[in-house]
Amino acid sequence: MALKFELLKISGNARRGRIHLPHGVVETPTFMPVGTNANVKLMIPRLLDEVGAQIILGNAFHLYLKPGLDVFRFHGGIHNFMNWQKPVLTDSGGFQVFSLREGRKITEDGVLIRSPLDGSKHMITPELSMEIQHAIGSDIVMAFDYCAEPGISHQDAVVALELTSLWAERSLKKLRSLSDQAIFGIVQGAFFKDLRLRSAKEITSMNFDGFAIGGLSVGEEYDITLDMTKFTAPMLPENKPRYFMGAGSPKLIVDLVDSGIDMFDSVLPTRVARHGQALTWKGKLNIRSAKYKFSKEPIDESCDCYTCRNFSRSYIRHLFDRGEVLGQILLTIHNLHFMMDLSKKIRESIENDTFQELRGEVLKYYA
Amino acid sequence: MALKFELLKISGNARRGRIHLPHGVVETPTFMPVGTNANVKLMIPRLLDEVGAQIILGNAFHLYLKPGLDVFRFHGGIHNFMNWQKPVLTDSGGFQVFSLREGRKITEDGVLIRSPLDGSKHMITPELSMEIQHAIGSDIVMAFDYCAEPGISHQDAVVALELTSLWAERSLKKLRSLSDQAIFGIVQGAFFKDLRLRSAKEITSMNFDGFAIGGLSVGEEYDITLDMTKFTAPMLPENKPRYFMGAGSPKLIVDLVDSGIDMFDSVLPTRVARHGQALTWKGKLNIRSAKYKFSKEPIDESCDCYTCRNFSRSYIRHLFDRGEVLGQILLTIHNLHFMMDLSKKIRESIENDTFQELRGEVLKYYA
Ligand SMILES: [Zn+2]
Ligand SMILES: [Zn+2]
Repeated sequence: MALKFELLKISGNARRGRIHLPHGVVETPTFMPVGTNANVKLMIPRLLDEVGAQIILGNAFHLYLKPGLDVFRFHGGIHNFMNWQKPVLTDSGGFQVFSLREGRKITEDGVLIRSPLDGSKHMITPELSMEIQHAIGSDIVMAFDYCAEPGISHQDAVVALELTSLWAERSLKKLRSLSDQAIFGIVQGAFFKDLRLRSAKEITSMNFDGFAIGGLSVGEEYDITLDMTKFTAPMLPENKPRYFMGAGSPKLIVDLVDSGIDMFDSVLPTRVARHGQALTWKGKLNIRSAKYKFSKEPIDESCDCYTCRNFSRSYIRHLFDRGEVLGQILLTIHNLHFMMDLSKKIRESIENDTFQELRGEVLKYYA
Repeated sequence: MALKFELLKISGNARRGRIHLPHGVVETPTFMPVGTNANVKLMIPRLLDEVGAQIILGNAFHLYLKPGLDVFRFHGGIHNFMNWQKPVLTDSGGFQVFSLREGRKITEDGVLIRSPLDGSKHMITPELSMEIQHAIGSDIVMAFDYCAEPGISHQDAVVALELTSLWAERSLKKLRSLSDQAIFGIVQGAFFKDLRLRSAKEITSMNFDGFAIGGLSVGEEYDITLDMTKFTAPMLPENKPRYFMGAGSPKLIVDLVDSGIDMFDSVLPTRVARHGQALTWKGKLNIRSAKYKFSKEPIDESCDCYTCRNFSRSYIRHLFDRGEVLGQILLTIHNLHFMMDLSKKIRESIENDTFQELRGEVLKYYA
């Protein structure tokens, strides 16, 4: 088995765990930075390591288009390719099916998609998704799923759910025939509790190494996201990791942990950094504001990242003002450090049974 | 005195020297990376330090416009502002006079320039240039000069030369009244030897701490650049540093050292890096080329920079292919490391009297 999960402690519903993977150990709960094109934007791997990232995400579909599987086979996988020797999780392409609607055609076999790069057509099946993720060599593979649109009818959501279960079975079978990589199943069911229940039953009946909740945080209201998660999470087996796909706001993260989730990912912390927004222990901060022109303070005085140890708000504001990419680099370092620090503090608070205090502190600044 | 120069060795015309400055020692000959807006593009100061940069350039005119002198005064100078604790040299704004022709008006008093940022008008005088560079707190200040256009007539070049001498005197007087910063005079004279001779005489008659050759490498033919340098350099005092303004190609650098120059700067190594061009010991390499798709080799197998120690041509090519800025960051690190490594090898070769062999090796790959 390529994955071993230890559930170290439960405090309320919050879980403190540890995942053993071929490329290392992941302490949970944890945020996972997203590295779509085999790099986390603006972060050299050494700095990614330094901010405390334990595992990063790759996007199977993007990596399949470029650089292509021949390149991954040539290098023997993504770890050598990008020189990142810690764990990698790859998504299956399911979310791309969801977001690339133009020219898309869904059949029982799989999904026909148009490449956003050159318009070429690609038939993505569960089997191909597994071949891609096998060539990439990720530590955790995701089953190929159907992530439904928000606003989907109950009737259409049933179809999506049934395809997801069918594809989950085919994904599992195919991957086990290819390698001993760990693979997570994905629970769908849109915003219907009966369907979430049915999907959770069907997906957890299969021998996956962990389970994800998909199809949430895709534009619906916050209360729905949370309600669906609180409904779904308890149906997932306690002895396997639980991953909520696509959560990057501090508020959502503490609420997810409070619902029993172990892993989350999002492009948000790196994306907002490139637009001048810093995440701090006192809430968000827009570094472009004129009020920081004369501020010798670091972005966050309680942060010990490279950026906060060395640079003032005044300097970073100047870099943004002049359009210097170094400003984006420095904020990316800080925001990822913040997310990893938040993850670490969450873990410590679960160990100490003080998670609710920490959650309250975060919710005070992130409403 | 804020500058002390040791001439350690002469081999042919090549000079091995050492400049002591308030923020540290600069071993010469050396390349100086350019940090126009108080940062070397895409380089966090820690990495700049790591590639071996000893001194970087700032642009007085740009820094005057943004962030403005009030910000530098608030921080107590550029070193604190950008957290770079090694020496900084600032240009005087003279080159901006030369390059911003739109709406420019030159009088004996100074130059009226339109800001490229917002169109606002600014009267730059030698006195203001000194005040700017004083507020910035650079280790080496440059006199305010008039850098003539290529193709300038002899008659106009005389006017430029006379203004340069007048402004040099005013620069020196003003700076000495403000601080004990080191200041370099700049020899102009366009492409006329009689004027170079006259300018060198006039400028070197003043008590500057070092001398620069300006107004070359501005678009003229290579042979003229070199001929003018070889003519001018011997007229500069042997016991003070010699700086050729604006030289970044390996070929020009070894030829300048061969002419007795100690310092050179250029945006070229960082600019070409952002366009995918690497400088190597076997010549230039365009990483965007399809032929590197399957190359596990580093950019330069003889290079020990962070990039070459960790990443393949294949990976960096992929990053450029996907428009990921990390590719530009990794090549910038390499190219600056190459320039500093070239500087170091030049210094060693002068010490060992093998500079001509090194020069021959460089000229073999950079024609
Ligand atoms: Zn920080
Ligand atoms: Zn290198």
